Amino acid sequence: MTQPDFDEVIDRIGTHCSKWDDMEGAYGVSPGQGGLAMWVADMDFRPPTAVQRTVEATAAHGIYGYPGANAPYLDAIQWWMANRHGWQIEREWILTCAGLVNGVAMALDAYTNPGDGVIVMSPVYHAFGRVIRASRRELVELPLAIEDGGYRMDWSHWETMLTGGERLLILCSPHNPGGRVWTEEELREVADFCTRHELILVSDDIHCDLLMPGQRHRMIADVVPDIRDRLVTLTAATKTFNIAGAHIGNAIIADDDLRAKFKAALMARGVSPGLFGMDMVAAAYSPEGAAWVDALVEYLDNNRRLFDEGVNAIPGLRSMPLQATYLSWVDFSGTGMSTAEFTARVEKTARIAVNHGTSFGKGGESFLRFNIATPRARVTEAVKRLREAFSDLQ
Amino acid sequence: MTQPDFDEVIDRIGTHCSKWDDMEGAYGVSPGQGGLAMWVADMDFRPPTAVQRTVEATAAHGIYGYPGANAPYLDAIQWWMANRHGWQIEREWILTCAGLVNGVAMALDAYTNPGDGVIVMSPVYHAFGRVIRASRRELVELPLAIEDGGYRMDWSHWETMLTGGERLLILCSPHNPGGRVWTEEELREVADFCTRHELILVSDDIHCDLLMPGQRHRMIADVVPDIRDRLVTLTAATKTFNIAGAHIGNAIIADDDLRAKFKAALMARGVSPGLFGMDMVAAAYSPEGAAWVDALVEYLDNNRRLFDEGVNAIPGLRSMPLQATYLSWVDFSGTGMSTAEFTARVEKTARIAVNHGTSFGKGGESFLRFNIATPRARVTEAVKRLREAFSDLQ
Repeated sequence: MTQPDFDEVIDRIGTHCSKWDDMEGAYGVSPGQGGLAMWVADMDFRPPTAVQRTVEATAAHGIYGYPGANAPYLDAIQWWMANRHGWQIEREWILTCAGLVNGVAMALDAYTNPGDGVIVMSPVYHAFGRVIRASRRELVELPLAIEDGGYRMDWSHWETMLTGGERLLILCSPHNPGGRVWTEEELREVADFCTRHELILVSDDIHCDLLMPGQRHRMIADVVPDIRDRLVTLTAATKTFNIAGAHIGNAIIADDDLRAKFKAALMARGVSPGLFGMDMVAAAYSPEGAAWVDALVEYLDNNRRLFDEGVNAIPGLRSMPLQATYLSWVDFSGTGMSTAEFTARVEKTARIAVNHGTSFGKGGESFLRFNIATPRARVTEAVKRLREAFSDLQ
Repeated sequence: MTQPDFDEVIDRIGTHCSKWDDMEGAYGVSPGQGGLAMWVADMDFRPPTAVQRTVEATAAHGIYGYPGANAPYLDAIQWWMANRHGWQIEREWILTCAGLVNGVAMALDAYTNPGDGVIVMSPVYHAFGRVIRASRRELVELPLAIEDGGYRMDWSHWETMLTGGERLLILCSPHNPGGRVWTEEELREVADFCTRHELILVSDDIHCDLLMPGQRHRMIADVVPDIRDRLVTLTAATKTFNIAGAHIGNAIIADDDLRAKFKAALMARGVSPGLFGMDMVAAAYSPEGAAWVDALVEYLDNNRRLFDEGVNAIPGLRSMPLQATYLSWVDFSGTGMSTAEFTARVEKTARIAVNHGTSFGKGGESFLRFNIATPRARVTEAVKRLREAFSDLQ
């Protein structure tokens, strides 16, 4: 493959990308005036060459009609799960949704009713709460504890919190934000909890490929095969390969009855995949894609190091050690500042657009989330600006 | 613009297109053995050059992240509706869904409950019934009458058919199959009917641009402005410009309350547009796109003439005169053959894959739907094969 050059700064301004083009409207940080986009979770990198080539080939062919004949797509998913995650799946288990937010929504639609409790471990990816509330389910936030600077599940507390109205739990694995890679032991505890409380378990594994060196992700389906009759695993190539615009994800469901219900929800809501996504995923889930991911995570790990060293050198700021993801989760509580103040310093003084911790739910209030999947020069610049914005603390 | 060459035969086999690559599995008609794909409603033509250029530009840029900054997309829709349909809309009225099947599903989700009656005028686009049933609504088929060889609404009959449990009516305008362009008078009757029976009216106008010469489509929102508090208009550039793979459509809703409910459904089901679709639509809804459509419908009209002349010369076959769409609707009842027999002659003898009339609901039993949006040489070949397959009748 062509060696990826993650240092290349590619101008995305004016390309109808949310990260750069919606930044000013959302945060008042202007890209034209040197603002840095470190919010939305996509990367400022091109995908593997094979992915770009397949998009170019489709573009050149020129007929963009109804997609079909998806065997290579299903084969590629099967291959990737076996080769990268040691997870053997059947092609028939794979259902296609329009990205993971849609996948979560379809699971709520398929397995719960309005008013039912849906559990998340907070703080967690903001779209979960949004979809849960919009579908008139009850959002149940089980607060993660912090131990040794990272998140841990808090079972003894959580056991006391349920009311009996809960029907489904969304596991974020690895966890976003904070980047925890859950251990096999933790995954077993999640499975036990779901079995004990008769919960459907939706495992969002979208960050499963973006692991820092030395980490190993396990699919809960593989660790606890017994859970299959209540388990929906959501995966996507979109996060791994930076192709969120393809708007495609998968629900992998081994249990026939559970899968039939999810499929019925897709049918009822008129959800089916578009043309570009399937080809992009088929090209990405390949040996070339695997080599690209290996190079990517090495680069991200170095970005993480640089960012954490810089940020943690600022008194009062503390970046949670990432085991996975490129989403640095920085705690500003040590500054003693209000949320409004530290946010203003980041946005107005440092001119960096970030995700606000409050949007991730309980426990996120003192945090901001920084997307470090960008050329290193920008990470260096961000650290420099943060140091200046909080220079009075030093 | 580059003058489109609709006569060019472009090989779509092996491009993961449903029309050619799923044909053998669906109908036993092999493209490799000279089978003709005349089923799925997309065209064997490239879209306007501007559309292809924008896809190529996105492909070449190479970063396919979350899309945003959709102002040019909304502007283009507004421009098209005003300039091609004389319909003045506000940008705020436009909601984006993942194609029209998803749009219909979101309307059912937003305005009806399981068990509610949902009315269609049958025979009609098969996906309506599929989504209505999948979402556990009651499918209410009001049979269209045939007058002077074309469909007409049958109000005196229909008024006697309702039970009071109906909540929503889906109008297909122009109608698919059969290609009727509803008159202003007919649209007023639809609006009156919906008002009288307190029905939400979902008008699927996806074929509104594909009119035979001399026809004029009217948007019901424009003809009956009073209906706005119960009207959802579904439009898409995907049918007009042959970009179904972009998987994008719009619900245009003037009424605030009605729009808020539709928006909430999109949010609850995690539906949002992908990257390629918005740019393609913005490029298509343009003066260049308009000129392309003018050339296209002229070509389609000539295909229609050729096809109808050939088919109607076969004793027992009768093609309904199309006022719109490229979907010829051929009645085989005059042959005296069973559905199985005339279908076998088309599929096995003539080796043409077509949509079965039964899938369009009541009244479709003796019909097959032929997609004539293909280079003329193929239409000629199809007519020749049909003549041979039914030669014993001549």
